[in-house]
Amino acid sequence: MAKDYPPLKNVPGFSWLGLNIGIKDETLDFGVIASDCKCSAAGVFTKNNMQGAPVIIGREHLKDGQLQAIVVNSKIANVATGQSGIEDAKNMCRWTASSLGISPEQVLPSSTGVIGKKLPVEKIQEACESISKKLGSTPEHIENFARAIMTTDTNPKWCFELIGNATLLGIAKGAGMIEPNMATMLAYFVTDASLSQDLLQKMLNSVVNKSFNRISIDTDTSTSDTVVILSNGMAGEVNPEKFEEAFTRIAINLGKEIARDGEGSNKLIELTVSGAESQNMALQIAKAIINSPLVKTAIHGADPNWGRFVMAVGKVFQYPVNLDELSIQFGCESRGMTLNANNIESSKLSLDEISKYLQNNELKLKIIVGKGLFSETVWGCDLTKEYVDINAFYTT
Amino acid sequence: MAKDYPPLKNVPGFSWLGLNIGIKDETLDFGVIASDCKCSAAGVFTKNNMQGAPVIIGREHLKDGQLQAIVVNSKIANVATGQSGIEDAKNMCRWTASSLGISPEQVLPSSTGVIGKKLPVEKIQEACESISKKLGSTPEHIENFARAIMTTDTNPKWCFELIGNATLLGIAKGAGMIEPNMATMLAYFVTDASLSQDLLQKMLNSVVNKSFNRISIDTDTSTSDTVVILSNGMAGEVNPEKFEEAFTRIAINLGKEIARDGEGSNKLIELTVSGAESQNMALQIAKAIINSPLVKTAIHGADPNWGRFVMAVGKVFQYPVNLDELSIQFGCESRGMTLNANNIESSKLSLDEISKYLQNNELKLKIIVGKGLFSETVWGCDLTKEYVDINAFYTT
Repeated sequence: MAKDYPPLKNVPGFSWLGLNIGIKDETLDFGVIASDCKCSAAGVFTKNNMQGAPVIIGREHLKDGQLQAIVVNSKIANVATGQSGIEDAKNMCRWTASSLGISPEQVLPSSTGVIGKKLPVEKIQEACESISKKLGSTPEHIENFARAIMTTDTNPKWCFELIGNATLLGIAKGAGMIEPNMATMLAYFVTDASLSQDLLQKMLNSVVNKSFNRISIDTDTSTSDTVVILSNGMAGEVNPEKFEEAFTRIAINLGKEIARDGEGSNKLIELTVSGAESQNMALQIAKAIINSPLVKTAIHGADPNWGRFVMAVGKVFQYPVNLDELSIQFGCESRGMTLNANNIESSKLSLDEISKYLQNNELKLKIIVGKGLFSETVWGCDLTKEYVDINAFYTT
Repeated sequence: MAKDYPPLKNVPGFSWLGLNIGIKDETLDFGVIASDCKCSAAGVFTKNNMQGAPVIIGREHLKDGQLQAIVVNSKIANVATGQSGIEDAKNMCRWTASSLGISPEQVLPSSTGVIGKKLPVEKIQEACESISKKLGSTPEHIENFARAIMTTDTNPKWCFELIGNATLLGIAKGAGMIEPNMATMLAYFVTDASLSQDLLQKMLNSVVNKSFNRISIDTDTSTSDTVVILSNGMAGEVNPEKFEEAFTRIAINLGKEIARDGEGSNKLIELTVSGAESQNMALQIAKAIINSPLVKTAIHGADPNWGRFVMAVGKVFQYPVNLDELSIQFGCESRGMTLNANNIESSKLSLDEISKYLQNNELKLKIIVGKGLFSETVWGCDLTKEYVDINAFYTT
């Protein structure tokens, strides 16, 4: 578990807290991000039809494109809790707003954890009353926030970049119920760059599509997924292209950290499908492979059972691939081993070499499916016995 | 592993064998079904785009609607083996036909096992030469055939019924790479009922859709799936409706046996989705649930984490369900426990009771998603650590 965390730098004008308020036994379970002033804000939420109460309220509060604070609890997701769950999410905003002296509509609530249980509202109300006293802007405050939003995550996840005078910082959580169909976890970005709400929302949509929508842990789409960015404008204007590039890099980095920290996972898999006839063909084939339990278990065991890649490519019925044109590359472009799927002898590559490569903790795989011009990259993880252990006894 | 096998009765005019010919170390790996005369025949094959060589040749040989023999090996699937794999599949038919004194086009070949390895053709040729001497019609011969086609299966699978004077017997195998999108394993049916090829094919399509296409073990669609029925006509005509009813029952029974024997599985899950607005809505929601790794692991651990059913219903984006109308029934209609997903308190049902029910080896679950008239039933299994063990080290 020893791990070097990346450096951490606050964005001027934002303060943070992460506390244990007794929802979990010992670890942090309650976090707040607060801005000194109103922020332009943009958000992307789960497409799961059974949206959590905080997602429903969060959408409402984002309608005017402005936010000033985010309040989050972990362990209980406040999903499938009926009208009383909606009231609980509204109250979380009301209590937070009251402590900060702002309006409840300026607060976005998030809850993550078990579905179908009610929030312990007394504990949350009591915690909210202390928010203004406990907020701070040291790296420790930020790290506590990043830890407070974790569920089965084994590591907190953050990443920042400087763009001109501005700073962009992202914090994310996620380890299970992760399927690449939209924002699939919690991620919060704060910046002091001055950017309009319209531009923020456009950028966020594009960034999420290239990053969080390209990761997969277990094909299950959460009911609570939320990605939000707050911009307080304190650093003035920035070059929007450079900002979006940095935003994309940070989001991909956080997305990869989520995939690497997938429940029970030992390995981060970066998979590129190239040579496709369309973007969707590349994406559908990439998803079929990265989601295949037989591919994921083979990678876990470093089993050079490359036929399972062939099976996974073939099960995308709408996009037939010619076996003669299918090749599988294990490792980086220059030093990679390429296997011609229809003529294994010609590949001059031993299964032992593939097995040895698959023993690495971070794998780069490339599947060439033809001579088309489209490609997609996705990130996932292996399927292990620990995944079963974690999920067979989650609520009990 | 002690298990009472169902009774076994041969169909007049068919003979069988199952041998070890050295493809596997010790267990049976080579099987033949032979008919005394030409049969009407119908088949359904995998929709995976990367079809195995035996599937390609099998389709060709079925074009005239007649077959007289089936030859199968297990352990190696003869998929992704190029032109030489096609030649090997043709040769299997040629050698079998030669021993039986029939034409090669009357033989359907099947191979099941690892993808991307070449068949040991010398062993197969030698075995084929002995076919006519080793065939027999005792229950032991049939059981040997059923065992010879197994891969990771823990049990052989058969089922028969009498329809008037006729007998219908089905034999199946399958335990992994099983996804309910079409025939997803090997299954062979033989009967002495007299039925035209057209009628056989129509019945087979309908039966497969209600049985094998409704089972799921791991969402991975095999490259080798084949379901074939041979009818030698010796018992004369039968009532087609009664025959199709029996055919459906046998196929569902075999499909359930495959799901129960899913790799590493401890539990058979029968899941019905009812109250849907369309057949496809019922099926898509049923598949989302039965394929969800979080549902499958919760069931494995008898964890009453019913929120995961809510999540799985909600991730079928195209068919929104109103949480107020969603209920989950654990157990049979009359003695079942029903949980109202939006109002758990009103359900008067303890999580301990659900957990206790989930400890059974055979589970009946019903998800009511509204007031619509459509329903679908599917079968699957739990996800266990043994699944990971079996598949992490399959070829090594």
